[in-house]
Amino acid sequence: MMNNRPLILITNDDGIQAKGINELAACLRDFGDIVVFAPDGPRSGMSSAITSIAPIHYTLVSKEEGLTRYSCSGTPVDCVKLAMNEVLETKPDLLVSGINHGTNMAICVHYSGTMGAAIEGCVLDIPSIGVSLTNQSPDADFTESCRLARKLSHRVLKEGLPKGTYLNLNVPDGQSIKGMKVCKQADGRWVKEFLRLKNPSGKEVYWLTGEFQNHLPVHDDSDTLALESGYASLVPCKIDVTDYRYLTHIKEWEIDEQ
Amino acid sequence: MMNNRPLILITNDDGIQAKGINELAACLRDFGDIVVFAPDGPRSGMSSAITSIAPIHYTLVSKEEGLTRYSCSGTPVDCVKLAMNEVLETKPDLLVSGINHGTNMAICVHYSGTMGAAIEGCVLDIPSIGVSLTNQSPDADFTESCRLARKLSHRVLKEGLPKGTYLNLNVPDGQSIKGMKVCKQADGRWVKEFLRLKNPSGKEVYWLTGEFQNHLPVHDDSDTLALESGYASLVPCKIDVTDYRYLTHIKEWEIDEQ
Repeated sequence: MMNNRPLILITNDDGIQAKGINELAACLRDFGDIVVFAPDGPRSGMSSAITSIAPIHYTLVSKEEGLTRYSCSGTPVDCVKLAMNEVLETKPDLLVSGINHGTNMAICVHYSGTMGAAIEGCVLDIPSIGVSLTNQSPDADFTESCRLARKLSHRVLKEGLPKGTYLNLNVPDGQSIKGMKVCKQADGRWVKEFLRLKNPSGKEVYWLTGEFQNHLPVHDDSDTLALESGYASLVPCKIDVTDYRYLTHIKEWEIDEQ
Repeated sequence: MMNNRPLILITNDDGIQAKGINELAACLRDFGDIVVFAPDGPRSGMSSAITSIAPIHYTLVSKEEGLTRYSCSGTPVDCVKLAMNEVLETKPDLLVSGINHGTNMAICVHYSGTMGAAIEGCVLDIPSIGVSLTNQSPDADFTESCRLARKLSHRVLKEGLPKGTYLNLNVPDGQSIKGMKVCKQADGRWVKEFLRLKNPSGKEVYWLTGEFQNHLPVHDDSDTLALESGYASLVPCKIDVTDYRYLTHIKEWEIDEQ
């Protein structure tokens, strides 16, 4: 049977049972056929990690008209790769990763499994968006983030994205956001990163925590400032991380000339 | 006792027992005091993954004049964070990650734990270099890659790197490389990514494999072409992944105007 509805691939890093991914799938259903292909449990902070030391597997979780859900033993990037290589018969028109329980602003784009999946979609030439809400709670309210994810998905389904570019949408918690700002990735880092504890044997162990510190001055158009000011932030990102300006400079280095 | 020698932090994703990291530490010893802080086992393909669901720990492995070695239960990025937050008393003058057993050219910068550690060093304002050899064998010959890692480390110790920029050095296997080229990250993707197997219960499982496919046309200044032509490739990379060109374009989108 022919089907001209768009195909939308949805994944995340919080796992297929998370509220965020299920609300996302529900809110995009009228835009096309949805395939959810997501980790079988939490994979937060997995970045673009891939599983190479052991095989992975997947399981059909549910199937109804226009919505098929699979869980996978791998990372978010594994999910995208496996769905594309072994499960989907046609290339999706859109990949949306999320909605993440917790922010992925600023340099978190590097640590985030949500964004890792969006990067992988982009590598595989699917217009790809990562969506995150600045609330880590399992029962967070995704009303506003779903509303914006819908608007953005609609736009991207219509217009596509440039090859090699993906989108990072972060939505502040709450009912009354001020709108959405197009931003650059903020310049900052995490500090006070570990809680020091003793394990039952008395050995010191370290649990990752920390607080984000903006580098000063904070740029007016940075995503952290937008979020702190009550706006959602939309950062367009590139998979080509080459520093072209510095490349020109170091071309003059004579490190290993013949 | 005062010590004015540079402090060099070394890590990797193949684990502290790997030949590559030990040859790297040995070849940089005369440049400064070396601290090796590396995963306690293989963490290939861990990207910038961080461990947040459980605590991590580290152990002193060996200590001699100018060379201290620690192993850590976390990812490469965890290693850099933990060393910086809990172990080192001063900020390193240089971070070198590797030498990786296997290439990290092109988009592998996104999947690589070696490069994840270099990115983290850069986030923490340490001049950071990832070094990889295009040979995955445990007993690969690191002579040429050590020679280039030394030259590059010497240069970076002297001149530093711009804030937010790190280096990705890949060295082709063999005794007679033609030199080093400053390159851009190649545009390409992996294809045929999974080997399909059956596990002992008869369930289908999928083992990551694949082959790299350049996008055509292959740019003259891409790292894959340099490596295929017998040169080492040096790509300067940015932690700011914002697509500034597209940002200007989508500023005109009216997705959620007030």
